[in-house]
Amino acid sequence: MTGEAGRPRDPEVDRRVLSAAAEVFGEDGWGRFTVDSVARRAGVGKASIYLRWPNKKELLASCLEARITPVADIDTGSVREDLVRLAEQMLTAFFGESGRATTRLLLEADRIPGVAERVAQLRQAQVLAARAIVRRGIARGELHGGTSVTLLLDAIVGGCLNHALAAPAHLRPQVAAGLTDYAGELVDFVLGAVTAG
Amino acid sequence: MTGEAGRPRDPEVDRRVLSAAAEVFGEDGWGRFTVDSVARRAGVGKASIYLRWPNKKELLASCLEARITPVADIDTGSVREDLVRLAEQMLTAFFGESGRATTRLLLEADRIPGVAERVAQLRQAQVLAARAIVRRGIARGELHGGTSVTLLLDAIVGGCLNHALAAPAHLRPQVAAGLTDYAGELVDFVLGAVTAG
Repeated sequence: MTGEAGRPRDPEVDRRVLSAAAEVFGEDGWGRFTVDSVARRAGVGKASIYLRWPNKKELLASCLEARITPVADIDTGSVREDLVRLAEQMLTAFFGESGRATTRLLLEADRIPGVAERVAQLRQAQVLAARAIVRRGIARGELHGGTSVTLLLDAIVGGCLNHALAAPAHLRPQVAAGLTDYAGELVDFVLGAVTAG
Repeated sequence: MTGEAGRPRDPEVDRRVLSAAAEVFGEDGWGRFTVDSVARRAGVGKASIYLRWPNKKELLASCLEARITPVADIDTGSVREDLVRLAEQMLTAFFGESGRATTRLLLEADRIPGVAERVAQLRQAQVLAARAIVRRGIARGELHGGTSVTLLLDAIVGGCLNHALAAPAHLRPQVAAGLTDYAGELVDFVLGAVTAG
């Protein structure tokens, strides 16, 4: 092979393109998401993108998959610690550099053909892993046997969501700086309803 | 005056236009929100819209104001009852006919000039009214004195948000049918953490 396709790929270009894709999607949504706009934002040629991704759906899917952290890895042996890490992950997803893309996904994922299915799978895996955290807590006797897994997770995951979405633009840096403290406080508050003992 | 401007306004046209505006905004967002697309969706002429609203910002603001319910009216004398009504209102906003517009507002409101300020004011009023619900509960001795107003509301408001956003498209009718039950269950769950006595 000769030409660009024969050269080793530059991981820095991958990183820049994926980061630009998250920005463009976050700001403009799927309706205006084009390979052209991502190339311009990343400062690379369109050919460099098509060399790596066959079309814009694959580009967006790849960008999102790189940004959705697998909850499955959380298993510290303590339900409080697991839930605090889960809350921190969620808050980081909403306040990090791809925060706007994360929020937009909530709204648009189900309407993007080819992306919807993959995001739904990742989400389903996250939900199952989060439910497993609570079930292990019940099995270890840390939580009441009758604890509602759904309500507990709605309160914690939703609390993070509301904390992130309700923050006015000018307060976001301040709120972002307090994420770790907030995660601990929210989990302790909600666990107050269901802690065995 | 003569001509269309002299005829009495037809409230049915107002209703149809505002409902079409919520649909167009919910589906396509501000980037593609035009008087033309709203007129087509409502099945009215553009002139009928311009007769009522000078531009698309005023049209969208008017549509959203009609759809954001004032929490201020909730004051039953019982903190549980107030919170259940608050939760029902939120869930209805997300599952009702303008649900998608409500969700999209969360994401885009701060980027729509002329609309951002009015939505921010309405939200601020909602937050203050919700905080007042909790404070009255503390004052009446229904909740512990040290109850965190912020955490309690994040858990309940966020729980509703998560319940609404996490519902897969094919389960939405089923979830929508159980909204009232869910509101009561969520509030009772969260109050378990802070009920005095």
